[in-house]
Order: sequence, then structure tokens, then C-alpha cells
Amino acid sequence: MDNHFNFIGSDTGQWEIIGQNTVKGDFIMPKAANLSISNTHSPILENNIWVLKGFVSNVRYAEKAEKEKLAAIQEGLGRPNATCAALIPIRKNAVWWELAQDERRKIFESQSHHTETGLKYLPQIARKLFHSRDLGQPFDFLTWFEYKPEDAAFFEDLVGNLRATEEWKYVDRELDFRLRKNQT
Amino acid sequence: MDNHFNFIGSDTGQWEIIGQNTVKGDFIMPKAANLSISNTHSPILENNIWVLKGFVSNVRYAEKAEKEKLAAIQEGLGRPNATCAALIPIRKNAVWWELAQDERRKIFESQSHHTETGLKYLPQIARKLFHSRDLGQPFDFLTWFEYKPEDAAFFEDLVGNLRATEEWKYVDRELDFRLRKNQT
Repeated sequence: MDNHFNFIGSDTGQWEIIGQNTVKGDFIMPKAANLSISNTHSPILENNIWVLKGFVSNVRYAEKAEKEKLAAIQEGLGRPNATCAALIPIRKNAVWWELAQDERRKIFESQSHHTETGLKYLPQIARKLFHSRDLGQPFDFLTWFEYKPEDAAFFEDLVGNLRATEEWKYVDRELDFRLRKNQT
Repeated sequence: MDNHFNFIGSDTGQWEIIGQNTVKGDFIMPKAANLSISNTHSPILENNIWVLKGFVSNVRYAEKAEKEKLAAIQEGLGRPNATCAALIPIRKNAVWWELAQDERRKIFESQSHHTETGLKYLPQIARKLFHSRDLGQPFDFLTWFEYKPEDAAFFEDLVGNLRATEEWKYVDRELDFRLRKNQT
């Protein structure tokens, strides 16, 4: 499936894992030296230490004006100078998932300004969201960020802002991987 | 995965397929005599003729008041007297999936009254939605309906109403299977 990806922790990979922290919850992930991201058409490396799965899907909360602003400003993944990356897997609790669409949207944007905050950090911080919950994975979402080394403090600011929101009160499991692009 | 299901057309199964129509598009499904529905924990029958896959997920459009009304009135699947069923796989076009959340919600409910219409047919017509698009399936959604033989005309009315909506203009592929519960 073209929209399904594996995030694979192993001895090899395009990205060196330089940091791994548990932000919330007590989910244990073994340590791996490197990370690779591949479409599920590719076979999973046999020497993998862990695999997280997610798929790209349609937008779930962004409204027309927000979607257009995002599309106009954001830059894609794979920029040559964006040698820093972060992978932040999160799970939201059962209360969140029982909420109706308007209740989730209200918390997501009216109260937590999720998209508005993300927009402030564009185009420097590129990001891509992968959905995991519907695959029975240990996390609901995997978010992948790429940025230049000189934007590292700017990225910390973005993450700090999101974690301080009302929305983040529903997050009950969160890991934070930091990565550096390996020379090829 | 507990939320993933296979709809399997084969020589055997809980449901006899008594009708199969292409409503929109030219997708070809071979004919099967019976249908079974099983969680993906179960192995897929070896003698299957076709398999459609879908998963149950959180609500995507229903707002709080609508979600509460649905929960208060709807009845579950598997009622002993609900020996009639329908399986309606649909795919929506690329224009639909490029729309932002507020645009899709507006078409879905403000213009097409999807949930409001469904509510009118409760509790007689029980239904369950399975998501397929994110699995790279030939359809985006599989909707399964169960009702009593005496509610058959009422069900036709529901289907007719939905197909006449603005929302349905975005449907570019649709099949319609009708089924009868096999005696066990």
C-alpha cells in the first residue's frame, strides 16, 4: 500500500538515533542505533530491533483556510540541509476517542491552536503525520519532523508549545526520538 | 487487530447473497453464493472468491448531539429477527478527499443530512461503517445494514434518500449486495 510506512529501528538506516526519551507513560522501546523509513512495499529488514507502522491519510481537522495556508507555506521532507529530525509517537486516551468530531476539533484548534501553532514554524520545520491507531499499533500517531541544525531551538519551542496545550492533556503515551542524517 | 474485518464472498457463509448490483462505476466483482464476515484474527477461508477489508474507527463527522442521539436509538447487529442485510461498498472521488474537514462536513450534513437521515430509520435499520480507503482497498467504505423482512421497503427508502444527496455526487464507485441469513 503506497500510503503505509514502516519506521524501523535497527543497526543501519538513513538516520542515526541520537536521543530517545519517554515523555509520558511507561511504554518500553528497546534502543536502536539507527532508523530507516520505508514504504511497506519494501520488505522489513531482518535485523530490525523495532518497527512502528503508520499511514498517510486525508486531513481530519484542518478547515479550508488552514489547509490552504499550510499548502502554501510548508516545505516537503528530504531537504538536503534539513539534517535534523524528530520522531514523536503519541497515544491519546479513551476519553479523547469517545469525543464527537466537533468536541475534538474544539480542543484541537479553538483551545489548543494546533494548526495555527504549526503554521508559525513553517517553512523551517517540515512535518508529516502518520496514523497508527487504526492499525492496532501501540501509538495513535507518529509525527516526523525535519529541520536544519540552526533551527533546533525553534523546533524545541514548537514541541514545548504543543505539549503545553489542552489537547496534550489527552496524550497518555509519548516518546521522543531525535535523529541526525547519516552521511551517505 | 480487533477492529479489522474481512467480508468474504465464497461458497459458504452466514449470509446468502441474493442480489448483487453495480450502482456506479465499472468495478467487476465475481459472483459468490454466500458471504461471511470475520475478524482478521481468523484465517481467511481458502475457498474465497473475493475479500473486502475494512476497519471500525472513531466517528469522523458526527457532532456531540448527533452522536448522543445515535447512541440512544440505534440497535446492534445480530438481532435474531433481522434476517435481511445489505453490503454497500462505495468509493468517493479525488475531489472529495482533497476537501478540508469543514467542507466535507458541510456537504455530509448541512447539505446532505447524512446522519439526520440515518436517524430517521433507527432503530429498524441497524448499520455499521467500515473504513477501507486507508488500506488501499478498491472501496473507501463498506457499510453493512441489517433489518427485518417487514422493514425492507423502509430500507429501500433510506438508500434512495442517501443516493439522491449532494454527498453522493462524489461517489464514483458503488456496489450493492443484498443478503438473507442462512438457517444454522
